[in-house]
Amino acid sequence: MPGTNTDCATRIIARCREIAAHTEVPGEITRRFLTPPMRAVHSLLSQWMEAAGMTVHTDAIGNLRGLWPSPIANAPRLIIGSHLDTVPNAGAFDGILGVILGIAVIEELLEHRPPFSIEVIGFSEEEGVRFSKAFLGSLAVVGKLAPETLQRTDQNGLTIAEAIRSYGLDPANLPAAVLSRDAFAYLEFHIEQGPILESEGASLGIVEALVGQTRMQLLFEGQANHAGTTPMHLRHDAMAAAAEWIVAVEACATAHEGLVATVGKLDASPGAGNVIAGRVKTSLDIRHADDNTRHAAVDALTQIAKTAATKRGVTLTLRTEMEQSAVPLDPHLTTLLHRAAAQAGYPSRRMTSGAGHDAMILAPIIPSTMLFLRSPGGLSHHPDEAVLPQDVEAALATVMEFLALLSDDKTKDSHA
Amino acid sequence: MPGTNTDCATRIIARCREIAAHTEVPGEITRRFLTPPMRAVHSLLSQWMEAAGMTVHTDAIGNLRGLWPSPIANAPRLIIGSHLDTVPNAGAFDGILGVILGIAVIEELLEHRPPFSIEVIGFSEEEGVRFSKAFLGSLAVVGKLAPETLQRTDQNGLTIAEAIRSYGLDPANLPAAVLSRDAFAYLEFHIEQGPILESEGASLGIVEALVGQTRMQLLFEGQANHAGTTPMHLRHDAMAAAAEWIVAVEACATAHEGLVATVGKLDASPGAGNVIAGRVKTSLDIRHADDNTRHAAVDALTQIAKTAATKRGVTLTLRTEMEQSAVPLDPHLTTLLHRAAAQAGYPSRRMTSGAGHDAMILAPIIPSTMLFLRSPGGLSHHPDEAVLPQDVEAALATVMEFLALLSDDKTKDSHA
Repeated sequence: MPGTNTDCATRIIARCREIAAHTEVPGEITRRFLTPPMRAVHSLLSQWMEAAGMTVHTDAIGNLRGLWPSPIANAPRLIIGSHLDTVPNAGAFDGILGVILGIAVIEELLEHRPPFSIEVIGFSEEEGVRFSKAFLGSLAVVGKLAPETLQRTDQNGLTIAEAIRSYGLDPANLPAAVLSRDAFAYLEFHIEQGPILESEGASLGIVEALVGQTRMQLLFEGQANHAGTTPMHLRHDAMAAAAEWIVAVEACATAHEGLVATVGKLDASPGAGNVIAGRVKTSLDIRHADDNTRHAAVDALTQIAKTAATKRGVTLTLRTEMEQSAVPLDPHLTTLLHRAAAQAGYPSRRMTSGAGHDAMILAPIIPSTMLFLRSPGGLSHHPDEAVLPQDVEAALATVMEFLALLSDDKTKDSHA
Repeated sequence: MPGTNTDCATRIIARCREIAAHTEVPGEITRRFLTPPMRAVHSLLSQWMEAAGMTVHTDAIGNLRGLWPSPIANAPRLIIGSHLDTVPNAGAFDGILGVILGIAVIEELLEHRPPFSIEVIGFSEEEGVRFSKAFLGSLAVVGKLAPETLQRTDQNGLTIAEAIRSYGLDPANLPAAVLSRDAFAYLEFHIEQGPILESEGASLGIVEALVGQTRMQLLFEGQANHAGTTPMHLRHDAMAAAAEWIVAVEACATAHEGLVATVGKLDASPGAGNVIAGRVKTSLDIRHADDNTRHAAVDALTQIAKTAATKRGVTLTLRTEMEQSAVPLDPHLTTLLHRAAAQAGYPSRRMTSGAGHDAMILAPIIPSTMLFLRSPGGLSHHPDEAVLPQDVEAALATVMEFLALLSDDKTKDSHA
């Protein structure tokens, strides 16, 4: 892919759009784990990878893996990756941009070989749509895909194992999908999927950590009653209790730097305008890069919910549905990436990722870092999801500087 | 129906339960306007009315009307009524108790004829279930059933006019259903359908007014966004705006004597735990016996909703779905009823009705009053709806004193 960085950025975006044409649902971008359009995606990416001098194969979980070997014997291996699958009715960049940027890096490097090999991985599954289980691709790569997971079924009753077989792969080969022992670092490019970079006019974000997350369900149970004949002091209004708590959720998150807390779901029953709500079920999603901060907020909000319920004669039942620790990324790689952006002439912002990414699965196994590209309008998981050519250019320039810094590192390592 | 008042109360309750056996849905009590079980109800009531010396007919809207004529020529006519229909899966007393108590009054009076005739009306429709239009029976009686209303259809596409005809009645006779010009007062017995009397240990409530009511729909529109990647200061959270307002609704009603305000319905979209709610639609039901108090509260709550929305960059759209003025009942009759209860030895409470009743339709036409009987557990529109025998006894004793006071009144009138 010759040409200026601007040409290159334009072609990266064009490739993302070319991939987006392969979809399960005509007119939208929907590409779930190992569904038929994934074959065309593999085929296109393989062509580009092979043209760049990479050797390509598909592993047993359906990850597309292109290796650009180093001529140096026993050279360490840098992994660049992101995912190939999408949510239903998605945009054209979430995931795939990181894979196509990875291939573009190889194309740019043709004449400046670093002292390591590079493996670009297109993870087959990250979104968790088809089997209600996320990170199938990266879990297989770190050897953490539990055998029982393969028995999960999709909406047609097909298991993951069967989906793998019907794609022409063999679950028995999963052990061979595990990361090579010479892998020394993982780099992931991804769109931010949020409005922070745009709001600050920055192209790039250097991710220091992926937030930890608690998801809960709260059930407020009062008493359904006639909205006209039940005076205020004799009510047990589950909606009023829930509302008081929701206001507190927002206030608590606003008061703590970096904390986000959301009540996105509320089901009231009986759900009639002239009947006091007897039962309200709500969600809570709360995230922070520091687990202690998050746990303290969960405790405080639980207490507030209890108080809001009790004072109305409403009972509260809490259920924790997900509890996931924060994942710090590698401080050294993150510093290198930050320095690289500065050297390339792009101001970048250190930030945490509020969403999960494959890097979250890789980070506990090998030093990992992530580079975010600004999301126009903060949009993602939406047909209007976009990426700006100048930001792709910035990412490409930054990663070139990063690889140079990493090469210096490795050269020092080998001389140490 | 000879025997003590206690026997009589027991038999009134037994008759309500006998009527309840006639239902559209076996195993529950469901009896909508002019559905087949209504024939058996008419037949039972007619037998009891005729046995008490009344002449019975069904008018063109399906109201069952029993007249106990006075031997005095041109005697004025007291109307006692309530409704025969029920909501789906109802209790055995809402409505029908008032009709059966009316018949019991005639039975008790056999030897003490007051100087007026008494017409007991079992209104065919009050709940508004079958044709999504309430008060069909009483509207016909006051001559306010609009001709276009007859073209409303039920869930099978049948119009009211067709339902009338298929029951063997003729809509052309509706003018004859209008109240006799000699009617001078309307009395309705009804279960309270609320918890006030029970909470104060009282058997009876004297209704001074039926509350006015506003029903609104509020639409909060913000922006759906990722719960993890959107920091608090860049959110437009429709749920948080709605919640702040719901808390204010409860506080406003609690702060104003006699005001009740309810948010019973809330629909959030997209409605996922990990997505900030972009759109929240809620109901508001607000009632008070004084229209000015209600209007002031609606204005204040509208302002609070706007502020809660604006400060979050959320837009607010309000729609008024119902606006109904309060209906005062006749002060003189209400005072007589209160005095009657005291003379009968039952403390009673003056109160407003938070629910609508046929009396609401009759009151603008003739002086009207209502007597509430305590609702155990505050329950109504529920299979467990009940009435206590001692409260039925209290109502019967009270109405006997009331008729005596009314007789004195009428005697004075005729001597004036």
